[in-house]
Amino acid sequence: MKRSFILRGHICHTPEAGKLEIRENAAVVCEDGKCRGIFEDIPEKYAGLEVTDCSGMLVIPGMADLHIHAPQFAYRGTGMDYELLDWLEHAAFPEEIRYEDPDYAGKAYGIFARRMQQSATTRAVVFGTIHPEATLILMDRMEESGLISYIGKVSMDRRSPPKLTEADARQAAENVIRVIEESAKRGYRRTRPIITPRFVPSCSDELMAELGRIREEYGLPVQSHLSENPDEVELVRQLEPEAAFYGDAYDRHGLFGRGGNTVMAHCVYSVPEEKERIRENGVWIAHCPSSNMNIASGIAPVRRYLEMGCRIGLGTDVAGGTSESMFRAVTDAIQVSKLYWRYVDREAKPLTFPEGLWMATKGGGSFFGKAGSFEEGYEFDAVVLDDSGEQSARPLSVRERLERAFYQELDRTGIVMKFADSERIL
Amino acid sequence: MKRSFILRGHICHTPEAGKLEIRENAAVVCEDGKCRGIFEDIPEKYAGLEVTDCSGMLVIPGMADLHIHAPQFAYRGTGMDYELLDWLEHAAFPEEIRYEDPDYAGKAYGIFARRMQQSATTRAVVFGTIHPEATLILMDRMEESGLISYIGKVSMDRRSPPKLTEADARQAAENVIRVIEESAKRGYRRTRPIITPRFVPSCSDELMAELGRIREEYGLPVQSHLSENPDEVELVRQLEPEAAFYGDAYDRHGLFGRGGNTVMAHCVYSVPEEKERIRENGVWIAHCPSSNMNIASGIAPVRRYLEMGCRIGLGTDVAGGTSESMFRAVTDAIQVSKLYWRYVDREAKPLTFPEGLWMATKGGGSFFGKAGSFEEGYEFDAVVLDDSGEQSARPLSVRERLERAFYQELDRTGIVMKFADSERIL
Repeated sequence: MKRSFILRGHICHTPEAGKLEIRENAAVVCEDGKCRGIFEDIPEKYAGLEVTDCSGMLVIPGMADLHIHAPQFAYRGTGMDYELLDWLEHAAFPEEIRYEDPDYAGKAYGIFARRMQQSATTRAVVFGTIHPEATLILMDRMEESGLISYIGKVSMDRRSPPKLTEADARQAAENVIRVIEESAKRGYRRTRPIITPRFVPSCSDELMAELGRIREEYGLPVQSHLSENPDEVELVRQLEPEAAFYGDAYDRHGLFGRGGNTVMAHCVYSVPEEKERIRENGVWIAHCPSSNMNIASGIAPVRRYLEMGCRIGLGTDVAGGTSESMFRAVTDAIQVSKLYWRYVDREAKPLTFPEGLWMATKGGGSFFGKAGSFEEGYEFDAVVLDDSGEQSARPLSVRERLERAFYQELDRTGIVMKFADSERIL
Repeated sequence: MKRSFILRGHICHTPEAGKLEIRENAAVVCEDGKCRGIFEDIPEKYAGLEVTDCSGMLVIPGMADLHIHAPQFAYRGTGMDYELLDWLEHAAFPEEIRYEDPDYAGKAYGIFARRMQQSATTRAVVFGTIHPEATLILMDRMEESGLISYIGKVSMDRRSPPKLTEADARQAAENVIRVIEESAKRGYRRTRPIITPRFVPSCSDELMAELGRIREEYGLPVQSHLSENPDEVELVRQLEPEAAFYGDAYDRHGLFGRGGNTVMAHCVYSVPEEKERIRENGVWIAHCPSSNMNIASGIAPVRRYLEMGCRIGLGTDVAGGTSESMFRAVTDAIQVSKLYWRYVDREAKPLTFPEGLWMATKGGGSFFGKAGSFEEGYEFDAVVLDDSGEQSARPLSVRERLERAFYQELDRTGIVMKFADSERIL
């Protein structure tokens, strides 16, 4: 049996994209780990449940970070003047190579997991490195953090630095299987493996085929990168002439939705056929606005994806993104959507705060099942924010306080409680 | 005599745009309020000075915020889904009207001034409201904060809500003079008035002419807004048919550099003639990247301004900008410059971190004289950052730590000491 209790406060969530529901001085009921509704007056049948009283505070669903590179956390916010290829060569790859050393991995992933625990994120889809042992260490640390996460041992067998290139597809496949089977033995409650080809340029066709087989055999989800940058899209076109478009190079190997949950980071330069395939196959898009600015990639057409009914959430993409803050990801997404409207497509209405909040919670949370909302039947993830440190000359509405909390990134200083799948983890 | 002392730490500053000088385990000497140089070994003649030891910490110049609206601080981070006109009508103007009440002004400006004191900003150019009494209260609070600031009583006599419209140009001029003369009597050491037409659409020709006369008579600087938004630029073209371009409508009244220091916020849509006039007249540009995103204005051509040799600094533009953090302004400027390169002008190389830091310090500091650098003869403004709370799996270089401090906005949690004009104010 999971936990049952009542959490009082100003309950705020987004049951639909763009629809912000605020219930002031209310309570959300959690029964056996599931939300049972939001009430101003607690129904008789729940009267006996323990009450956690956060009256006056903001209670929001936990955030789902659909794309973050754990090994890159160590150098976040540095090297941001590099262009993409120099950044990979001078920042990303040298750091990732360090994780062949389990001691380094233990130290760095310990720091990462603690910061994730302190953040507003309750669920995350995470890249590791190619190293099986370091990836298992990351899984250990994330399990301890209380977050619910998918952790990917990265697969790479071509066009990468020698120390980040697996010997061949067979060896790369064995490495993935080792992590899958060992992690199963460790009996994690919150941590699961995920198939993780780094991206098409660093994975041979043979490796992709192996990963497709493993995915099917073990019934696992998939994460990768897609159409982030024009040069990368062109490179994939040259490397994979048989693929109709970038995403098709995953789809041909069963690594693009349909059977298993798949999340693709970026989707900035997806051609119309790719957008359509994303929608048809039910692939989740991880929109990563901070990273797309820092690496000068561009701005993803999020309005279009929302109109199409695509599955979409947000990713912090540390360390292309500089912060693990999902609050920042929400406001970044809104801000860049305004520049997209201004410079790229005047038909693409800027995102609103309720849309950004929805992407960060229910939009991305759906990758994990029923998560990211306080609706009946949803797994109970919640963040309680105390914004009383933000002085104000006049009373602000709860709606104003909520928006301000995001723009002021109060997830850095104002979180007083956090629940993931009904367990209190902070 | 001003203060004389030695400050030890990792001394970091940008004597030129793009040139970051880092002197590890060094010290900056302040003598009679002025910087006397950075030394690894303290020269004999300074051997007797008191030493403030911040070894291991980052020591940077104070930031100059060239554009911030004090009355809008109260609602920062709210109403960001409005478009410009709705935002003015529903957020900015209703708040500014509240400052006709001195009690409200006292409370709100007290909060504002405390937050400015806690920030990395040591010098600021500030908009108030049209209210003389509230503006004097703001000056009192800013004087107490220790920051060095120019505070503008805003002038508006047309096309504004009735409660924010002065009766006529004559009355508006009297209101400005009242603040100038009363503030002189109050004997502020750090706080000065500045001529502040809100922007051309809200100031009649008669008012502009009055303000030009007052500026000259009292030898005051000027601040306003310029070419922020395409619709606004078009409106000015219609309202001021005799002006060759938007900025010319200020210049015709002696409110655009030349005689007096002038700072113009935004300059996103300046036509080539306006850019040239900005340069010729020595007008400072206050680049406000956060605001320009939030209000969906666009991105200013900062690379072009730097190449032209224009005077340029950064503004947070609260509450178009959502935060008073100048660290955030630096990284915002870099990020939007990458999108500018991607979408607007592939010849405009993205800004680097040293360029962003220079704009925030010496670039904007020059509006106040010799400020924003630790070079010989500069007024001593400094911020000391303790970044030891940011755990790292491996030692980072001072350069990496400095960049990370900005991207992680450690001005919110890591400032342990702040000096403005050699006085310790935090």
